[in-house]
Amino acid sequence: MAHDLRTQEIKNPIDVAEYLFKRLHEVGVRSIHGLPGDYNLVALDYIKPAGLSWVGNCNELNAGYAADGYARVKGVAAIVTTFGVGELSAVNALAGAYSEYVPVIHIVGYPSTTAQRDGLLLHHTLGNGDFHAFSKMSAQISCAVSLLNDPHEAATLIDNAIRECILKSRPVYISLPTDIVQKKVDGDRLKTPLDLSYPPNDPEKEDYVVDVVLKYLHAAKNPIILVDACAIRHRALAETHELIEKSGLPVFVTPMGKGAVSENLPNYGGVYAGDGSNKGVRERVESADLVLSIGGIKSDFNTAGFTYRVSQLNTIDFHSYAVKVRYSEYPGVRMNGVLTKVAQKMGKLNIEQGPTPNNDIPDDEIMSPSPTITQAWFWPNLGQWLDPNDIIITETGTANFGIWETRFPKNVTAISQVLWGSIGYATGACQGAALAAKEMGIKRTILFTGDGSFQLTAQEVSTMLRNKLNPIIFVICNNGYTIERFIHGWEDSYNDVQEWKYKDLPAAFGALPGQVATYRVETKDEVMSLFKNDEFASGDNQKLRFVELVMKWDDAPAALRSTAESTAKRNAEAAANN
Amino acid sequence: MAHDLRTQEIKNPIDVAEYLFKRLHEVGVRSIHGLPGDYNLVALDYIKPAGLSWVGNCNELNAGYAADGYARVKGVAAIVTTFGVGELSAVNALAGAYSEYVPVIHIVGYPSTTAQRDGLLLHHTLGNGDFHAFSKMSAQISCAVSLLNDPHEAATLIDNAIRECILKSRPVYISLPTDIVQKKVDGDRLKTPLDLSYPPNDPEKEDYVVDVVLKYLHAAKNPIILVDACAIRHRALAETHELIEKSGLPVFVTPMGKGAVSENLPNYGGVYAGDGSNKGVRERVESADLVLSIGGIKSDFNTAGFTYRVSQLNTIDFHSYAVKVRYSEYPGVRMNGVLTKVAQKMGKLNIEQGPTPNNDIPDDEIMSPSPTITQAWFWPNLGQWLDPNDIIITETGTANFGIWETRFPKNVTAISQVLWGSIGYATGACQGAALAAKEMGIKRTILFTGDGSFQLTAQEVSTMLRNKLNPIIFVICNNGYTIERFIHGWEDSYNDVQEWKYKDLPAAFGALPGQVATYRVETKDEVMSLFKNDEFASGDNQKLRFVELVMKWDDAPAALRSTAESTAKRNAEAAANN
Ligand SMILES: Cc1ncc(C[n+]2csc(CCOP(=O)(O)OP(=O)(O)O)c2C)c(N)n1
Ligand SMILES: Cc1ncc(C[n+]2csc(CCOP(=O)(O)OP(=O)(O)O)c2C)c(N)n1
Ligand SMILES: [Mg+2]
Ligand SMILES: [Mg+2]
Repeated sequence: MAHDLRTQEIKNPIDVAEYLFKRLHEVGVRSIHGLPGDYNLVALDYIKPAGLSWVGNCNELNAGYAADGYARVKGVAAIVTTFGVGELSAVNALAGAYSEYVPVIHIVGYPSTTAQRDGLLLHHTLGNGDFHAFSKMSAQISCAVSLLNDPHEAATLIDNAIRECILKSRPVYISLPTDIVQKKVDGDRLKTPLDLSYPPNDPEKEDYVVDVVLKYLHAAKNPIILVDACAIRHRALAETHELIEKSGLPVFVTPMGKGAVSENLPNYGGVYAGDGSNKGVRERVESADLVLSIGGIKSDFNTAGFTYRVSQLNTIDFHSYAVKVRYSEYPGVRMNGVLTKVAQKMGKLNIEQGPTPNNDIPDDEIMSPSPTITQAWFWPNLGQWLDPNDIIITETGTANFGIWETRFPKNVTAISQVLWGSIGYATGACQGAALAAKEMGIKRTILFTGDGSFQLTAQEVSTMLRNKLNPIIFVICNNGYTIERFIHGWEDSYNDVQEWKYKDLPAAFGALPGQVATYRVETKDEVMSLFKNDEFASGDNQKLRFVELVMKWDDAPAALRSTAESTAKRNAEAAANN
Repeated sequence: MAHDLRTQEIKNPIDVAEYLFKRLHEVGVRSIHGLPGDYNLVALDYIKPAGLSWVGNCNELNAGYAADGYARVKGVAAIVTTFGVGELSAVNALAGAYSEYVPVIHIVGYPSTTAQRDGLLLHHTLGNGDFHAFSKMSAQISCAVSLLNDPHEAATLIDNAIRECILKSRPVYISLPTDIVQKKVDGDRLKTPLDLSYPPNDPEKEDYVVDVVLKYLHAAKNPIILVDACAIRHRALAETHELIEKSGLPVFVTPMGKGAVSENLPNYGGVYAGDGSNKGVRERVESADLVLSIGGIKSDFNTAGFTYRVSQLNTIDFHSYAVKVRYSEYPGVRMNGVLTKVAQKMGKLNIEQGPTPNNDIPDDEIMSPSPTITQAWFWPNLGQWLDPNDIIITETGTANFGIWETRFPKNVTAISQVLWGSIGYATGACQGAALAAKEMGIKRTILFTGDGSFQLTAQEVSTMLRNKLNPIIFVICNNGYTIERFIHGWEDSYNDVQEWKYKDLPAAFGALPGQVATYRVETKDEVMSLFKNDEFASGDNQKLRFVELVMKWDDAPAALRSTAESTAKRNAEAAANN
């Protein structure tokens, strides 16, 4: 056996795959999502010895969604796929993670470096000897691409990729060729944990920005705080909470920011999304003379179709990459340090209270004699049933807009894909989130998906069963793509779906006797008794619970109606010019 | 309403979407695969008026696989997805079509050109104002990318894309922004059908090559013909058949070439794949002093792990892009014309007969008292049951190797993904193939997939039900990823899958009463009586038939065993250098 000279110089040689998975363990990963394939099989042998477990998803797209859900709860996730067929199946999930700043490490089992060099006509290739086409595709949606073709740089490339992933909070791509898996790297490197701290702001610059912020803050008569997704994704929640609690300012969240703020705080005011805002919120936010906007992503669906009416002259934006005061930009100044100092130095501020959101059922719903479950009735009701620490996942569709009407108890984690908006995501993400919850001792993971969306990734219920997870799954049965109908094609058959017997699926997916409880609720009364059913609701129930929640095909939350209208208008804008 | 000046100059103005779908109809498409999304909804309204029908798949990856299957039967297919989320979900299916030369037209509903120009922060974007990232990704796996941003070039770009797709037999990508859908183009262009003929070879060059081929052919004592995938994919079957029938030479197919040749011809000799060849084939092929190789793709799985032992000195390769005689290359000379002339001019040749394959059951299987269904027993048996004109789809896994042992009746179409090898493909492709079959009056579409593979794309059975298709589906139930076990991880849990109740799925997917018949066969006798059951077998039965075919987890066709061994060796090759 030819010995690599340098290998002999390594004091504590360990295999590349061992190094990789131990680093993943170090940063908090405990489960690896993905599917086997012959180019990654040998690497999979290193998972268990590194203290990790293998999830074994049904397909790679779902595995990618699951990894995203896991990362949103645990802070980071990893997925292993095989060259070409596996990685490309997952690419949409990773694009979603890129778009929404979710740190997912994508490890792709590659053909050996010699096969690559010789351009062999291998399975899972394009047949043209090009082994770079797929990494080029992933480069569009990764913040780092590490191709492990040389054992001497493997450890460094692995460390860089993991660090980039966490600091930039976006997916990275690591290729692991079959002949690199067992090459040796220096195990002693593992004695020094990765440095995952953000580089600090230039202190002088930071102080300068803090002073500018304080000047405007003190001058403001009725300032408010608006918290958005990047406060979560770029790990500024501690600083944000400090500011909220110390200042006592009215605080609002955007749809993507839901869950960032404990909604039982006395100064919590509700969801702001322009025309789609909670009751009283729009007036309060838009009359504020200063909006402290933390981690904002002003996308169409996050603003109910660009219907924000907040002037930039009244806004201070806090981002991971910059602070922006009215039109003055301070690039390179990360929000975290600034928020902390502002909270420390601000002293007393002018406070004008905001509205207090609640989970009251709208009057006309209370008066209505109809037993039909309406969207307007359901979502506030849900808020009354939720528990602190619940993880709530909502799918693009009526659920993602309905949840705006649900006031959460404290410490709820909300997961949704408001910007990327890939349907099927929520079911996959639920698998990952439920697994992370189990690892962290969080009791309830609750999914709300649409019947149309569920059909894209339904088989991941099987993976939940396989991994003995116990989420509570609500499938909103409303005969198809309701959100699309509100945009275009009201009764067109392309917005219909095949009518499944949804709750028969867990059994067909091999649920063991007693592993699943299924329900179908068609009336308000049935919802209320379900919510009151302790066995159904208990976080200690180890059963997966699966509910068909029947709603009308032509019913949608108010915020969806207005967003759909503006979307349809934008999509059609130039049609008028024909 | 502002009128575009140029529009008024068009004599017969029609909408871009109408033009596009009418062109698709013209080239033979009758059904459009895909999913709706708000960026494509308005375009979907043009499908029915163009004489096409909408399939409505469960997810985009499956839709892509289905389009691939449809194209392999009908010659071309189209899929419509929505920007970002939809198109990226389908990208692996289109990469497969690229790799295996399948003409699929991918139409992606895009945000309006004005939204793109203004870099709006829309849903389904990466959040960075970049509207080109996804088309760049697809460019890696498309032979043409047409971005319809300007109505004045839309018709030309559409025509080019469709022509490229068919002539190169590979996927093309067409973006269709929402504000272009209803822009006007000249409908009179449709009066001239697209020219889809291959540019002819330079006649002098072609004659020269024909003479060279004839020289070697006449000198050969025991030549043979070997037909591979590109004879099918690049439309040289008519020419190939003429050569086979006129010459009387022994003819063999590769695994990817299966179905290219009517296997009931007297000179049909069986499957050649090096170590994985049918009985007697290897000896005959490798002792030939001349191999006329038509449309060869010498990939690992197509050659049982690169175990061909045919010298290039004894080979003439016929390709779509070149002819190669021993080491002399004739680039730019397409096989079709050359094959035709060779068949016309060859006269009498030296013929040494080859073996005659049959569907006899191996002796030890006949002798065996065990009722267990073995791979060695099943596949020849299948050959006795097949009918002429059947469409047979096999999945990567034991099925794809087992089918080598099945001698087909005449005119069988075989569909598999030997080069790209993405599991889950076969179930999706079955939906598309069964639909194409229905449109063409072909009676039976028969799928063989593995339990592991089926789990990736199971929901497309729902699409078959929705479209009233009646394929016969066999799921090989062998407790997981058997093919992978033979490569690595014999009893490792990562090669297990959740045990589903497979045949309960069609009902859960909403099969109407009487729409499906389900079966489970665990013994040879049960297989035999199933095959003899006329109702089950009849091509006139409109029911979808779903069979759990139980085999052992540690059983594999002989050809798979040897291919797996060489794959494992190649994957491990450099591990020995540690
Ligand atoms: C992967 C993907 N494909 C297509 C779409 C377009 N799309 C957005 S929402 C939606 C329908 C969702 O329907 P359903 O889940 O039933 O939700 P509902 O509005 O009925 O509650 C579709 C098709 C998408 N967002 N993602
Ligand atoms: C999309 C994709 N993911 C993973 C693989 C790797 N892979 C190849 S075959 C196979 C297992 C197939 O198992 P099954 O369908 O049960 O077939 P069997 O060999 O058991 O008949 C896997 C996981 C692949 N080829 N494609
Ligand atoms: Mg629905
Ligand atoms: Mg199997």
